[in-house]
Amino acid sequence: MSDTATPEAAVRAVALRAREASYELALATRAVKDAALQAMADALLSRAAEVLTANAEDVARAEGGGTPANIVDRLRLTDERLADMAQGLRDVAALPDPVGEVVRGSTMANGLELRQVRVPFGVVGMIYEARPNVTADAAGLCLKSGNAALLRGSSSARSSNAAIAAVLRDAVASAGLPADAVQLVPGDGHDSVKALMRARGLVDVLIPRGGAGLIRSVVEESTVPVIETGVGNVHVYVDAAADLDKALAIVVNAKTSRTSVCNSAESLLVHAAVAKEFLPRVVKALQAESVTIHGDATFGAHDGVLPATDEDWGREYLSLDIAAAVVPDLEAAVAHIRRWSSGHTEAIVTEDLAAARRFTATVDAAAVMVNASTRFTDGGEFGFGAEIGISTQKLHARGPMGLPELTSTKYVITGDGHTR
Amino acid sequence: MSDTATPEAAVRAVALRAREASYELALATRAVKDAALQAMADALLSRAAEVLTANAEDVARAEGGGTPANIVDRLRLTDERLADMAQGLRDVAALPDPVGEVVRGSTMANGLELRQVRVPFGVVGMIYEARPNVTADAAGLCLKSGNAALLRGSSSARSSNAAIAAVLRDAVASAGLPADAVQLVPGDGHDSVKALMRARGLVDVLIPRGGAGLIRSVVEESTVPVIETGVGNVHVYVDAAADLDKALAIVVNAKTSRTSVCNSAESLLVHAAVAKEFLPRVVKALQAESVTIHGDATFGAHDGVLPATDEDWGREYLSLDIAAAVVPDLEAAVAHIRRWSSGHTEAIVTEDLAAARRFTATVDAAAVMVNASTRFTDGGEFGFGAEIGISTQKLHARGPMGLPELTSTKYVITGDGHTR
Repeated sequence: MSDTATPEAAVRAVALRAREASYELALATRAVKDAALQAMADALLSRAAEVLTANAEDVARAEGGGTPANIVDRLRLTDERLADMAQGLRDVAALPDPVGEVVRGSTMANGLELRQVRVPFGVVGMIYEARPNVTADAAGLCLKSGNAALLRGSSSARSSNAAIAAVLRDAVASAGLPADAVQLVPGDGHDSVKALMRARGLVDVLIPRGGAGLIRSVVEESTVPVIETGVGNVHVYVDAAADLDKALAIVVNAKTSRTSVCNSAESLLVHAAVAKEFLPRVVKALQAESVTIHGDATFGAHDGVLPATDEDWGREYLSLDIAAAVVPDLEAAVAHIRRWSSGHTEAIVTEDLAAARRFTATVDAAAVMVNASTRFTDGGEFGFGAEIGISTQKLHARGPMGLPELTSTKYVITGDGHTR
Repeated sequence: MSDTATPEAAVRAVALRAREASYELALATRAVKDAALQAMADALLSRAAEVLTANAEDVARAEGGGTPANIVDRLRLTDERLADMAQGLRDVAALPDPVGEVVRGSTMANGLELRQVRVPFGVVGMIYEARPNVTADAAGLCLKSGNAALLRGSSSARSSNAAIAAVLRDAVASAGLPADAVQLVPGDGHDSVKALMRARGLVDVLIPRGGAGLIRSVVEESTVPVIETGVGNVHVYVDAAADLDKALAIVVNAKTSRTSVCNSAESLLVHAAVAKEFLPRVVKALQAESVTIHGDATFGAHDGVLPATDEDWGREYLSLDIAAAVVPDLEAAVAHIRRWSSGHTEAIVTEDLAAARRFTATVDAAAVMVNASTRFTDGGEFGFGAEIGISTQKLHARGPMGLPELTSTKYVITGDGHTR
């Protein structure tokens, strides 16, 4: 029997190779890493046929299995989507290298020189359900931050992911870096995911990207440190002192500009003082965009509004649905958000500085918006270039995670024979 | 049956009170928090008799149970130790408040103003085996960083911890902050520790401080995010280009200045080129300090050196023992450290800049020392004032953790009706 006879042994074997690769990656200069990223982009384009053929297998299998058309569309790659993936890698090459940044430094009273320097994590595991483009995006971000990537995509995209990984590995090697900087986790079943989650000591951090169920199971089962991402039960609170034109634009934008993303609004809270004026306008505007409103009794007085239950307050719809309630004051809005928020993004619309300060100070979320759409919680919008996900936890990284969030730090202390 | 009938319910009840308290703490100004810290220090002194009486119970129980004298000594409180605890709280009051610090900020192209601001975690759980002074130290650091503290000390110190917590809670309340900012976790058994570890959503982070067994069990069982602390299998590598006088002073200091702490040296690696000259000197100097050397074959040629096994290379002795080996070159030293290090602190002694650069770049540890004793890995020595522990993990915090490491961040984005 080979040493990859069990899922545990197979995952351990790739993780060990990833760790060896990570030692080289940690020492790679920005010039070498950027050359590798350009080579990866070039290879995705020059070997597009190979990737598209593999992708056609995944698409055929999905269609044969009766997968809904919108899910098949997420799976499908095209020349245009491959060009976007390649451009994404070039964009990462253009970003500054986080590794080696001196985060803080000083000279102690005794003359010891202290520097805290950014270093790669080492080996980053990604578990994701999304489109196959994540395979290239994650590989690029990990490589630029000096980390070896262990990638575990959706089994429905297995042929596509295998083809993409093969292309990227060759490109990495052609640039003089170890091919094992990019590896897929072997195996299709939960056993191999579980082995990845238990590979503490070999894998430095796990980042799950996907639905609430996936993330919960990783958080529950993993002994490898996890960065929780993505679930967004996002609220917009329209204050008594709101400019109602701005409020209307923000609510409609936050709910309808893209429903399938974690930063879209799922709940609307309106201060009672403006309910009489605002409710007819917002109900009409949302319904004009085909949004179904699940409302409390006050909203329920409007045609077409369905009654909301506790399930609605807690839901991330990711669809043209919104839960809506009238609240007596800002404190009640904060209390509602405390009870139901997933800690992703919360927004207040107000012209009252004291209300804005109170809301931003008391609402506990990765991002708090004042007079802006919740859709702005995004690595690109924040100026970080690319993001590996949006952290909804408080440890290590919170909010959109760019390259610096894929690093740890190390203290380097230099003396001249100092003893204590 | 009350709602605290099971360990889970009891822990849940205190965690909910901690969360309520955390909302107030997050808004408390530095002036109020510092006044509370001073009140806590005052109260420890004015109510010393109460604490010492409770401590005498713990000491009597330990002595009655045949606990070794050195452990009983760790448990024992005195007027002097109480004065140190009070001074520790005043020192924390003197440190800057991390909450509200703007970590980064910019104005986006569209005029949105982005600020990343330090905020408290919320509720911090501490599980510790150490002296009862940790109860006051941890309460002070958590309060200053705006966090409610859930403290779970050693059951051998339960009377002392209860008395200290009662004194501190009264003081916190007298300063106008919620007493529930400081709470002990109820219950003595593993059930209540386990309930704390599973209180995800109520407890934001768990920090275990203690032996390797405690830390491993928390890492394995906790669904609450954990910051791993403390275990130090610390190496000193004496390079071919070392100044052997400095090397001797550093090795002796790192091993013998305090053996029971995580930053003391446990292994010595010597480059073959200097072994002939250095080994007789270092063996003699260590033996003069009553250190037992567990050596490889080369070290073994010296009188009194015991043979080392793999167990020795992996051990955190925390005693007057050291493992010792000769290595052919720097790469072999790095390979040895990669295999056996716990990622705490590693040191090189060398006058060769290239060797120093190679060692600091390739050794993966929270702190890497050049020509300095490993004993310097310490929050106080690093100028952080006080530390809650030394993180040996790569996520969130690495190395000595001061007040900023007890915080998360929040993005606050301000616009004027911005939509996307």
